[in-house]
Amino acid sequence: MRVAVDCMGGDLGPAPLVLGAAEAASALRCSVILVGDEDQIRDELEGADYPRDRVAIQHASEVVAMDDSPTAAVRRKRDSSMLKAVEAVREGRADGCISAGNTGAFMATAKLLLGSIKGIERPAIATLLPSSGQDVVLLDAGANVDCKPRHLCQFAIMGDAFARRVLGIAEPRVGLLGIGAEDSKGNELTRRVHQTLSAAELNYVGNVEGRDIFNGSVDVVVCDGFIGNIVLKSAEGLAVAVADFLRESLMASLPRRLGARLARGAFTEYKRKLDYAERGGAPLLGTTGVCVVCHGSSSAKAVRNAVGEAAQMLDKGVNARIADRVAAIAGAGGGLLRHHGAQETDSQG
Amino acid sequence: MRVAVDCMGGDLGPAPLVLGAAEAASALRCSVILVGDEDQIRDELEGADYPRDRVAIQHASEVVAMDDSPTAAVRRKRDSSMLKAVEAVREGRADGCISAGNTGAFMATAKLLLGSIKGIERPAIATLLPSSGQDVVLLDAGANVDCKPRHLCQFAIMGDAFARRVLGIAEPRVGLLGIGAEDSKGNELTRRVHQTLSAAELNYVGNVEGRDIFNGSVDVVVCDGFIGNIVLKSAEGLAVAVADFLRESLMASLPRRLGARLARGAFTEYKRKLDYAERGGAPLLGTTGVCVVCHGSSSAKAVRNAVGEAAQMLDKGVNARIADRVAAIAGAGGGLLRHHGAQETDSQG
Repeated sequence: MRVAVDCMGGDLGPAPLVLGAAEAASALRCSVILVGDEDQIRDELEGADYPRDRVAIQHASEVVAMDDSPTAAVRRKRDSSMLKAVEAVREGRADGCISAGNTGAFMATAKLLLGSIKGIERPAIATLLPSSGQDVVLLDAGANVDCKPRHLCQFAIMGDAFARRVLGIAEPRVGLLGIGAEDSKGNELTRRVHQTLSAAELNYVGNVEGRDIFNGSVDVVVCDGFIGNIVLKSAEGLAVAVADFLRESLMASLPRRLGARLARGAFTEYKRKLDYAERGGAPLLGTTGVCVVCHGSSSAKAVRNAVGEAAQMLDKGVNARIADRVAAIAGAGGGLLRHHGAQETDSQG
Repeated sequence: MRVAVDCMGGDLGPAPLVLGAAEAASALRCSVILVGDEDQIRDELEGADYPRDRVAIQHASEVVAMDDSPTAAVRRKRDSSMLKAVEAVREGRADGCISAGNTGAFMATAKLLLGSIKGIERPAIATLLPSSGQDVVLLDAGANVDCKPRHLCQFAIMGDAFARRVLGIAEPRVGLLGIGAEDSKGNELTRRVHQTLSAAELNYVGNVEGRDIFNGSVDVVVCDGFIGNIVLKSAEGLAVAVADFLRESLMASLPRRLGARLARGAFTEYKRKLDYAERGGAPLLGTTGVCVVCHGSSSAKAVRNAVGEAAQMLDKGVNARIADRVAAIAGAGGGLLRHHGAQETDSQG
């Protein structure tokens, strides 16, 4: 198992990416290719303890900035660490890649260099959120801002395949994120998606509301990337605010401080459950390769876990499962997942 | 101060509405008109302790159901408790009204019977969310599913006026909910809104992300009602899941149970901070009257607090402030808040 790591794109510089990848090489017994400025990568590795035979460096002279447009990143920065990491997958030197850089650019690069799984027009970011039951897969968490109905239907199939393979759920309950369970509820986009998914060979449970993400009533939540990103970041923000608020409140008196000390194991568990670093990254589903998107400010631990996720995606054969499910569902539905009418022309091509 | 209460529309039947309104009449020294099936209302009041001179009953023979279309509710159920409650405001027999019923129908009824504030085309639901600083106003929280850019601009002005009057903030920081701070980030809708708001006479801080709702960096968060409703319900759902998870974790060992007991005041404070019942309802801003939308499953406490919110809206003159701000901002911007181009025709009329 060989994972290429874009070491340059993160908000915190190369350190957490280099060290997290080196840790993964030790702990997960996989090989990593550290892609980026060779001098900087060597500096970061200096003094670190890692298996030298499983950590390679590939120099790349350019860095994709957070504000580079995806198209410009792909076309003009041909020697970027991001492009070189994806290229390693295309050329078969790596089995998967991860990046903490510009998400739009990573998606565009992956789509261009690796191509899409047949029947999938746009890759989507799948993220795991905690719920009162098992973790829930939410997608798209930010790759596609303006979507057509058929894109959301394709996300549903990818989420179903991911939940089957990675979470081990036999018949994942797939819900469409909206504002009420009734068929008539939704916006222009989701009302049309709801119709299509109702007829698809999926365990589609219908429209679900925001609260259903966290109450264990659904396994896969489908939405466009604009909403998915807002939901994900709102949840992260609220989890942080709640923790801050509880901490402050627990420090407000001596008995509370004592109580908090006695119960501190519970707070550690809480932190672990809601900490995105524990999850590492979010897979970009839909390309023919394995790509994992990391938070821009990922810690070394998050990077190590993201490498682990890439390995898991490979191990579980998620892409093959997506391809199977697309063929089965699109086949059964007689092209259900393609153009539904004249209105649905896609200005993004 | 007289508030008309639609007693029939809630998910839990008339009991919490009748008793919550009666409590408000006692505690807040306001008058309430209980609108709905007279027999049922009298049954609920039986044995309750309330100021008889400040609690009136108005019979209404029909009930708007949760799945009635807004248009059908307004046109066909002319003797519904919802319509009669709004009518009491129009006829000057009440100063404001509240409903826990079908939100779309309540909005349509309020808009039709009370009319809109000049310059506001669509009323919006403003909800308060907890943050690490002062509470944040999020709007629209569910009244308008598909919006045009100018609607969101109007929501921004209403949110600004509400934050000034009700939260007492001198120059509220207004943010547009999206997926990144950069000007180019957003979906088709928000990119256009961002341009307009950047030029408006508001303390507009630009695009904000989901996490900014809760981190104290903004006072007013503007979005369409589809996204606002999803964010609101996600936050409610996550708060419940977090509380359940912490409770379970705190019960897992004897020291933790002891600790939780010592610190229980902190958990009570947490619950209060995140409990929507404490907030009561959410004002529907933009009509010429005062209307407060309650959660369908509101408790009596929530209803009492919603009556309190209606009273506060009246007391603080929120509607007059909205009218002033619309006139000032639309005036200064030379019609900034109206049609921006041929594409922006509104299919909803």
